[in-house]
Amino acid sequence: MAQHLRQVERALEDFLAPHAPPQSAWAAPTDLNNAMRYAVLDGGKRLRPLLVLAAFEAVSGTPAGGEDAAPLCAACAVELIHAYSLVHDDMPCMDNDVLRRGKPTVHVQFGQAGALLAGDALQTLAFEVLTPLDASVEPAVQARLCAILARASGRVGMAGGQAIDLSSVGLALTEDSLRHMHQLKTGALLQASVMMGAACGTASAAALQALEAYGQAIGLAFQVVDDVLDVTADSATLGKTAGKDANNDKPTYVALMGLERSRAYAATLAGEAHAALRASGLPDTAALAALANMVIHRDH
Amino acid sequence: MAQHLRQVERALEDFLAPHAPPQSAWAAPTDLNNAMRYAVLDGGKRLRPLLVLAAFEAVSGTPAGGEDAAPLCAACAVELIHAYSLVHDDMPCMDNDVLRRGKPTVHVQFGQAGALLAGDALQTLAFEVLTPLDASVEPAVQARLCAILARASGRVGMAGGQAIDLSSVGLALTEDSLRHMHQLKTGALLQASVMMGAACGTASAAALQALEAYGQAIGLAFQVVDDVLDVTADSATLGKTAGKDANNDKPTYVALMGLERSRAYAATLAGEAHAALRASGLPDTAALAALANMVIHRDH
Repeated sequence: MAQHLRQVERALEDFLAPHAPPQSAWAAPTDLNNAMRYAVLDGGKRLRPLLVLAAFEAVSGTPAGGEDAAPLCAACAVELIHAYSLVHDDMPCMDNDVLRRGKPTVHVQFGQAGALLAGDALQTLAFEVLTPLDASVEPAVQARLCAILARASGRVGMAGGQAIDLSSVGLALTEDSLRHMHQLKTGALLQASVMMGAACGTASAAALQALEAYGQAIGLAFQVVDDVLDVTADSATLGKTAGKDANNDKPTYVALMGLERSRAYAATLAGEAHAALRASGLPDTAALAALANMVIHRDH
Repeated sequence: MAQHLRQVERALEDFLAPHAPPQSAWAAPTDLNNAMRYAVLDGGKRLRPLLVLAAFEAVSGTPAGGEDAAPLCAACAVELIHAYSLVHDDMPCMDNDVLRRGKPTVHVQFGQAGALLAGDALQTLAFEVLTPLDASVEPAVQARLCAILARASGRVGMAGGQAIDLSSVGLALTEDSLRHMHQLKTGALLQASVMMGAACGTASAAALQALEAYGQAIGLAFQVVDDVLDVTADSATLGKTAGKDANNDKPTYVALMGLERSRAYAATLAGEAHAALRASGLPDTAALAALANMVIHRDH
């Protein structure tokens, strides 16, 4: 996992380097590039990239970071989408937050227009990263990765979940509605991370189905734990403002089922994730299992 | 051209339909989908989609709208990117405009958070449209289209140009700097429209080079004419606020070289575009020539 983290950090640094990208006549404007770097580098658990790389290794039996650039491109692309969503979610017209990853949020540091543009350009960069102009990723794999990522990020994925979140402030959602919101808002991208890693290799239909179930379980578990931490952790540990969901009157698992039942539910979901891995028929799912545990036992 | 317009309008309507997209378990949330539809449908010259379809027909000799879905997907994708950029550019932290295509802007109608999310989701939808899950577009073409569109839209394209625009308020730019800004902000996506149309067919290297020159000339001409119209047309004709560049102290061609020299420059650029088409060796470039004239002679 430590090696994967180093690979991801180095690749993100490369993709956000200040010089002109391959085959481009120009570099990105300095202000914009600085805001993009600020949003992405030096922080973040990199859970999504780690899921991509672990899923790739589970289906392929090959270490990520070899000649095939696809897994690392996919890992970075999904992190860029995640970073863009945080930049826009923190803006004053959304959650209006000033603290993220222990630092002032992007709009505090670069202004609202700067944050808006940096988020926009980070989203675009994800699709640039998935479609390198050299021959390092098979075109069919590029297309498949773009297809998965776009659907997980857009109106029937992350952005859709965010829209439901916005319109749910002050409402008492049913458990089904809450699950639906979170499957879109957080779950879709976490699940997509797993499926993108698998798409960089070759997996049987049964293994893909098991990985889909694993991704869905950890996606939901992640959000349940998020809701628990929002109530139980402090801002310094979280690196973001604690208690803000409760303060903003947002529907959460803790509000719906209380702290203890939420914790138990997260553990149940982790159990489902492990069961899916056992059912996958894949020979080595230890890294995916470790990531499921990390989702449950994280303190931020 | 009228037939192309009908094809594009129908396809955009399909892509933004309220029901769940193919192979998705869910439809987009209604509020979000409504804001996206409002931003895209019922308005717009559709210049970029028309360029895609005309370029495809020029290189392939085949009418767009046949069995190969690629040209129409590319046409819609580039219009979705254009629409997202307008939604975000109009927001209070950017140009703070209330009128677009003769209607209240998206944030006036749906709130700032709604506009932010709708723009985000429109950008994502562009990449969804380029990667259909059925076999209607060759995977290698999907990958190529995503690669071109992402580079033209992001930090070394449209978003980069917008960032330069933001930081240029009140500055007296040189002609070189002004051209650089506009090549990124407006030119890159117009040129990409031409190159995406060509990428849906097969073109010689010489033809591609000529189309690139054509795209660059009309891209710049478009912006020069935009600057002229900002000063000479009224808001009702433009469908957006007239005189806003001058009022916002933005560098423009009119400010740099005056009205008459700007008009002459636009005509020179149109001449370059026509010359590039003649040099392309392509048998039928009448539609592309007509679009170059439309760029110059438009009144809004």
